[in-house]
Amino acid sequence: MSAQTITAAIYRGDKSFTVETVPAQAPGPSEVAVRTAFCGICGTDMHVYHGNMDARVGFERVIGHEMSGVIEALGDGVEGIAPGQKVVVRPLDHCGECPACAAGHQHICHKLKFLGLDTNGAMQEIWVVPAHTIHALPDDMRLDHAALIEPVAVACHDVRMSGLQAGEDVVVIGGGPIGVLVAMVARAAGGKVLLSEVNPNRLAIAEKLGFETINPAQADLQAEVNARTGSKGADVVFEVSGSQPGVDAMTAVAATRARIVMVAIHAAKPQIDMFQFFWRELKLIGARVYEPEDYDKAIEIVASGGVDAETFITDVAPLSDIQAAFESLDRSPTAMKSLIKVGDL
Amino acid sequence: MSAQTITAAIYRGDKSFTVETVPAQAPGPSEVAVRTAFCGICGTDMHVYHGNMDARVGFERVIGHEMSGVIEALGDGVEGIAPGQKVVVRPLDHCGECPACAAGHQHICHKLKFLGLDTNGAMQEIWVVPAHTIHALPDDMRLDHAALIEPVAVACHDVRMSGLQAGEDVVVIGGGPIGVLVAMVARAAGGKVLLSEVNPNRLAIAEKLGFETINPAQADLQAEVNARTGSKGADVVFEVSGSQPGVDAMTAVAATRARIVMVAIHAAKPQIDMFQFFWRELKLIGARVYEPEDYDKAIEIVASGGVDAETFITDVAPLSDIQAAFESLDRSPTAMKSLIKVGDL
Repeated sequence: MSAQTITAAIYRGDKSFTVETVPAQAPGPSEVAVRTAFCGICGTDMHVYHGNMDARVGFERVIGHEMSGVIEALGDGVEGIAPGQKVVVRPLDHCGECPACAAGHQHICHKLKFLGLDTNGAMQEIWVVPAHTIHALPDDMRLDHAALIEPVAVACHDVRMSGLQAGEDVVVIGGGPIGVLVAMVARAAGGKVLLSEVNPNRLAIAEKLGFETINPAQADLQAEVNARTGSKGADVVFEVSGSQPGVDAMTAVAATRARIVMVAIHAAKPQIDMFQFFWRELKLIGARVYEPEDYDKAIEIVASGGVDAETFITDVAPLSDIQAAFESLDRSPTAMKSLIKVGDL
Repeated sequence: MSAQTITAAIYRGDKSFTVETVPAQAPGPSEVAVRTAFCGICGTDMHVYHGNMDARVGFERVIGHEMSGVIEALGDGVEGIAPGQKVVVRPLDHCGECPACAAGHQHICHKLKFLGLDTNGAMQEIWVVPAHTIHALPDDMRLDHAALIEPVAVACHDVRMSGLQAGEDVVVIGGGPIGVLVAMVARAAGGKVLLSEVNPNRLAIAEKLGFETINPAQADLQAEVNARTGSKGADVVFEVSGSQPGVDAMTAVAATRARIVMVAIHAAKPQIDMFQFFWRELKLIGARVYEPEDYDKAIEIVASGGVDAETFITDVAPLSDIQAAFESLDRSPTAMKSLIKVGDL
């Protein structure tokens, strides 16, 4: 494989990618080479595109981590998987030595490397990754659908951290891609889900996916939740909006002893109604990325059709058109998940 | 008992109490009459004294709830307890019908009556309360020490809600009476406790009680916690300060997956570092008052000497001097817990 060349998309700063022919990397010890089929564009990738993460990723970075593919080659010492196997990559590499790793929380390692941001990612035909990041897929899984497994695993982690029980009342605040996937996974777990979102296009997609929705800019979310729950409030709340109105709502709609999962990234420090946490004995649970069991669950959900992939995937573009795909997604009011078709598998 | 008169202290507004002779109330069905021995002055009672709770308590209210006493008489239908028994009162009366009661969380009932605020309290020689609020004490327990059981039960609830395990690193932010009791209960549970407080007098008391302390106005709390824990951070944090610096510190000192217990009442909405909740998967746990098992635990701790009552109780005054006792506590820089000796038992 040493003389092989591949096509890769490289982020060059200033909202631009170049698509180039580069030498294929060979897998080192304990690594595998994966031939990439599809790679979704994550919100984080849009942050890179907008230049917000230049200090972290630089201008020679292949990004992308929401991927699916097939094992191409194995490095020395890799066992239990064979070339040709359909796989996804859990794009986290931990140090193994910090207090978080020592406590068994490798996914929030103090020195965590996120593959596709801190290392090169999946927007290239062959991606070399640590073998421990690989999850095998069922042979009959569609690889475009499999590209949803990474964001579905985020949602699985969020729902698992909430301790959601079947029959509980759930409010999801924010109906972007992750909010909608959280709603799907919560519904699959038996939650009675209400999705709150201000963007009419996103509301339309959520309704197409069968969710009960509310636009809190036009209706009283707290009153609606009280009406639906006999003034109990929501047992589980997912804050996925990253906004001050979102954190105001999360305490307003919460039942006594409700669990509120903080999914969103709040760059600023919002004002939080701490009195309600005391008064109603609320719990706030921070949730970040995923653990291996969340990937296992996500694979199971996607394999069983628990995610309406056909509705959720709104665009697919070839790797050669990555520049146009990011530009289009950036201005689209209706896009949910855009995939890049990296290789023809 | 119908013709009996008793002495009662009545809050009259404007930082004033009157001490009056009033008819003793007889216990109705499912009620008991308790002869009050001691009643501690709570921070909430100081709020009443300052007029901050006039709309809730009015100007004819006997306050007080941190009490100890002896059963005087039983109303119809009360069984399992006899006159002469030493007791404390868990001063919560719930509705039994709201969603919180239905879920088994009677202590945070939506219509909770707090005895001594929403009804008359223990600053009177005979106090009539619902029988379900009674906890029996060991016969050999000192009744002055027993007046600490209510605030110790608050601390027991906070520590239980934290899930504290022996050997874990604990930071208590705020060294007032509740903060010190939380520190005591956390230490009794095997926690390695660091108490953070800015008031030098309170620091001196905490040190007399054997705690390691830090004044975050003079030293770097986060650096100190990191130095003590190998950069891990605190496994459990209790925010008892009710201040913006306190909530800033609670996220700064927290280990990955740390549990932060919100003990303080934040009347304003502080700014909270939500990013840290996401990034380190922190948990925030609201904790309010106590449940019956917390009272059982508090009785056990006070009975076994797990609270240094002699150091913690800094003043005792007779009921006739209640006005002076509140005035003194209000201006005292060194007081920790002031008791009113209500009756001579």
